[in-house]
Amino acid sequence: MDLAGKHNIYFLSDRTGISAETLGRSLLSQFPDHEYHFTSLPFVDSENRLDLAIADIQKTTERSGLRPVIFSTLTNPALRQRLLAEDFFVFDFFATYLAPLQDALHQKASPIAGQMHGIVDLGSYLDRMDAVNFTLNVDDGLRTKEYEHADIILLGVSRSGKTPTCLYLAMQFGIRAANYPLIDEDLEYPRLPDQLGNYRDKLYGLSIDPASLHRIRQARRPDSRYASIEQCRREVKQVDLMYKQEGIPRLDSSSMSVEELATSVLFKAKLHRQF
Amino acid sequence: MDLAGKHNIYFLSDRTGISAETLGRSLLSQFPDHEYHFTSLPFVDSENRLDLAIADIQKTTERSGLRPVIFSTLTNPALRQRLLAEDFFVFDFFATYLAPLQDALHQKASPIAGQMHGIVDLGSYLDRMDAVNFTLNVDDGLRTKEYEHADIILLGVSRSGKTPTCLYLAMQFGIRAANYPLIDEDLEYPRLPDQLGNYRDKLYGLSIDPASLHRIRQARRPDSRYASIEQCRREVKQVDLMYKQEGIPRLDSSSMSVEELATSVLFKAKLHRQF
Repeated sequence: MDLAGKHNIYFLSDRTGISAETLGRSLLSQFPDHEYHFTSLPFVDSENRLDLAIADIQKTTERSGLRPVIFSTLTNPALRQRLLAEDFFVFDFFATYLAPLQDALHQKASPIAGQMHGIVDLGSYLDRMDAVNFTLNVDDGLRTKEYEHADIILLGVSRSGKTPTCLYLAMQFGIRAANYPLIDEDLEYPRLPDQLGNYRDKLYGLSIDPASLHRIRQARRPDSRYASIEQCRREVKQVDLMYKQEGIPRLDSSSMSVEELATSVLFKAKLHRQF
Repeated sequence: MDLAGKHNIYFLSDRTGISAETLGRSLLSQFPDHEYHFTSLPFVDSENRLDLAIADIQKTTERSGLRPVIFSTLTNPALRQRLLAEDFFVFDFFATYLAPLQDALHQKASPIAGQMHGIVDLGSYLDRMDAVNFTLNVDDGLRTKEYEHADIILLGVSRSGKTPTCLYLAMQFGIRAANYPLIDEDLEYPRLPDQLGNYRDKLYGLSIDPASLHRIRQARRPDSRYASIEQCRREVKQVDLMYKQEGIPRLDSSSMSVEELATSVLFKAKLHRQF
């Protein structure tokens, strides 16, 4: 790969590196004009691993010619010191915040590598897995009788982003999220399908701009009627009309990521995240 | 809820708040002795919304008696200033890092609210959705003929965390992750099941401590043979033996979260994340 002139960005951590990456990418979104090359270096939890990581960074730096940018969440102070001694731009999230957090919490930090929620926290894990199972069982309009147990029900045309948004809601937040695909028959008269009538307060409608929908469908079934721009335009127009007439909150999946869609639904539904 | 003596932690953002929450929680994991009460305040993108958020924080503060801790990724400088004027502990991730990042990248930041990957980035979205579809189609030992198209195949006994780990790999990283449940017949002689023989280099084995497995199964099918501690011990012993004899890399889901399991598999498999 040609790295010349690209900014090399590293996410370095003694655990997964997910925190470093999530915040690092948010920060870089404020600098949209650059070209970046991203590398994730997780589980850097020993001197030896850090040596390998530093050698890796130095090698790429030679090819790019630009001083690399490292977002780090190393918890071990000795490893942090070694990293800071290199000629890199290091954004060390832990070093920056641990001291002021110690003041805020009146406690000294215990340098243990970051734990996230998961199997470790059994109650929350079981809730999230119940939600995932529920979501898989009622995916794509299956078993609408189960809708009474749903926290939310997402509507939308085929390929508008319902399944990934529901899975994200279930996995991250423990929300029981069903989804119902709106098909041609439903859209002939833009009216809420009968089996959804009892669940109005759980309904959220996904919309999408027709050109994006066309590109997504085109990748699946090239040059089909289903993927044609006319069909996409027609379906989107009809669902938007239906959402409006029936008073269903509408979210646009062409301008939001899966994470943003999921968080928006949660926010609109005033559902609390399962902590 | 009784909030007295609990530290109130807020994740405040003009978008989803996922960055603020991810890093905030990592930082707090260094202070495990405290009791926390978490609140997420996403989409705080106007003066009015910020007023509501501040009022909300002040109200909870009265009930807890402790000065609240705010992790913020507000991008709007005017809103940031207003938040900082309050009597809160504010950890403002953007204010801290934007100036040094401007130096590193030789560019001024454009204060736009953070965008994450998703439908917006169509290529990456389609890759991830293909991976999710693949993973759902081959979940739980279904369609083993498709294994030739898998990037990785997770093994493990029932309820050891295979499905959530596979879904995370697919959704976050675009990895085609299959999973194969090891059942009693497979475990009688601890040997690799025949249909997996051709895919040795894609195999990763989940293990779990028997007590955790017992608790997870007990929540599903209370007091069944399936959930009994004896059965859990036997199954785990046999899979561990099989992983060892067959040289299959082993990961322990009782000490790692879903995110950590997924990142570890990726790391061991030397698979690159789909950026």
